[in-house]
Amino acid sequence: MKQKNMIALVLPMLLPLQASLAQTLSPREVPAKSLPVPSTASPAIQKMIAAPLTPTWNIIPTTADGWREQVAAGAAATEKTIPALLEKLQVKVESTVIDGVKAFSVTPTLISPQNKDRLLIHVHGGCFVSSPGLSGTVEAIYMAGFEHIKVISVDYRMPPDHPYPAALDDAMKVWSATTKTHDPKKMGIFGSSAGGNLTLAMVLRAKRDKLPLPAAIAPGTPMSDLTGAGDSFQTNHMVDNVLVAFGANCDMRAALYTNGHDPKDPMLSPVYGDFSGFPPTILTTGTRDLLLSNTVRVHRKLRNAGVPSSLQVFEGQSHAQYYRDINAPETKEAFSEIGLFFNHYLER
Amino acid sequence: MKQKNMIALVLPMLLPLQASLAQTLSPREVPAKSLPVPSTASPAIQKMIAAPLTPTWNIIPTTADGWREQVAAGAAATEKTIPALLEKLQVKVESTVIDGVKAFSVTPTLISPQNKDRLLIHVHGGCFVSSPGLSGTVEAIYMAGFEHIKVISVDYRMPPDHPYPAALDDAMKVWSATTKTHDPKKMGIFGSSAGGNLTLAMVLRAKRDKLPLPAAIAPGTPMSDLTGAGDSFQTNHMVDNVLVAFGANCDMRAALYTNGHDPKDPMLSPVYGDFSGFPPTILTTGTRDLLLSNTVRVHRKLRNAGVPSSLQVFEGQSHAQYYRDINAPETKEAFSEIGLFFNHYLER
Repeated sequence: MKQKNMIALVLPMLLPLQASLAQTLSPREVPAKSLPVPSTASPAIQKMIAAPLTPTWNIIPTTADGWREQVAAGAAATEKTIPALLEKLQVKVESTVIDGVKAFSVTPTLISPQNKDRLLIHVHGGCFVSSPGLSGTVEAIYMAGFEHIKVISVDYRMPPDHPYPAALDDAMKVWSATTKTHDPKKMGIFGSSAGGNLTLAMVLRAKRDKLPLPAAIAPGTPMSDLTGAGDSFQTNHMVDNVLVAFGANCDMRAALYTNGHDPKDPMLSPVYGDFSGFPPTILTTGTRDLLLSNTVRVHRKLRNAGVPSSLQVFEGQSHAQYYRDINAPETKEAFSEIGLFFNHYLER
Repeated sequence: MKQKNMIALVLPMLLPLQASLAQTLSPREVPAKSLPVPSTASPAIQKMIAAPLTPTWNIIPTTADGWREQVAAGAAATEKTIPALLEKLQVKVESTVIDGVKAFSVTPTLISPQNKDRLLIHVHGGCFVSSPGLSGTVEAIYMAGFEHIKVISVDYRMPPDHPYPAALDDAMKVWSATTKTHDPKKMGIFGSSAGGNLTLAMVLRAKRDKLPLPAAIAPGTPMSDLTGAGDSFQTNHMVDNVLVAFGANCDMRAALYTNGHDPKDPMLSPVYGDFSGFPPTILTTGTRDLLLSNTVRVHRKLRNAGVPSSLQVFEGQSHAQYYRDINAPETKEAFSEIGLFFNHYLER
């Protein structure tokens, strides 16, 4: 009950700025339902769908130290899984510092001939607060290992100590520095969730600052709208077992990031940005994803701006479940699609 | 109550063939919710989202004459809207007969230069039973008018008088005949819902019978799986205001079509077919679509078969709402995307 009351108290801050028409129209009443696990996903994904809600989805720390503890616990649990990943995918991860920003060099044993001179920059997820250090490299390891390409994963600064724009500043420093040593026509940027937000925001900022743009980007299920708008926040409420509900733990973390800035600023909610001149973009989401809408809205907006853009939606998957089980066939499928897309648009 | 009982009686016939793992895993309990109209769709689509459930969604006739009456009432209502469509889009519709099959020639006043020798074959929706005659041409009129291309819309035979394979036989006769007078490299096939099913089934049958294949296809929100499998049948239950629920009116119509045949036969449920060698395919759906899953499953399966395939998903839309309001910007957007796709893959 205590948690529920806290949500009730903080939600008004995060309420979507509804257009007046939408407010005057009747809502649809949807009865309670019992959702069976679909037979139409692989057994590995079926198990993911059947998993209980993320234990911390609605446990909201009330102090900075409380957040630090929750984040540290999550990071420790993830880090334990990394040695097996590295072994299985034959990837090595090394700490580095690029223009003063902490990062990881994520390198597969085998680099494909076509990827010899290519480089991907990875910005990790975790709702802008979680997945510090090594724990943020999981998606980068999948990409490097499945697609045989070199990745640099940015270990950007995060709240509670470093709100916006620290993360974006750090990511841009790494982008700027690496484009001086690598040809940006041979470079891409990718990342999921908060990393999808940062991928899009990096391009907006590179445009603004007249920096080179990447040849292609792959924002996965991007947190593209921090104002709370997006229909699937409602339709997939309690259907998504990862994020579960709008205004819960993940959005409280995002609020630590926005830290009083206008969430409609395109650097915070990139869906409100100008997508003209964007590089080709591939987006990934799932039918149960709380951010399904905020993925397809970005796709539509890119297409309306004339940007070559591809959308993949995985059956039954909640938020960012396409890189949670290395053995699920859908995992390999998702990365293969992204790899093919980068291979098509990045120069050799 | 009477209607509800009928649904309860007929549903067991239609229950999905669940894989054993899925059956053993726990369902997710989702509480009742009140879904606001999202501000993230255009005002025209917001009004569509706010509309009440289709009045007949759960009114199931019990006799063949009852079906005929319900279908005739729907067709009459739709036909009334057609003169204004033709006027607005500058399109004319003429009855024709092709190899004994009734059809409509749907021709825009202005045909684009690149479309001069191109021809699209349209197979209409209506859950295999509805939208006879002129009432089945709406989507063809949108395509001809927005994309300035000639369309032939097949007025295929339907239940209760003509179950499977009558519709597919008719569509294939038109396909076969028109490929003798037109170059199939300059031809495409499209249609939504039951028409999406038939579009896919036509390609499966053309492959089987070694007939020419179209240069590209555009199945919209296809009824690709008549067995009841597909997660969004459950997740978008009562969220979609067009089809509303699995096992309701639309699936009862589909059952008249399958008429005792195995619904898992790929000619009835094309998602179970072999998609190798398929022509490039563009798929369209919405985030609230009861057939969201059965659209994305087709997309994934096509991609896994190496077929160039594009997916567009519209924010907040229920089943096939992308061709319900000629003035909604999303309507023009959907057809523009399909037009660009055909323009890319059809020879001139």
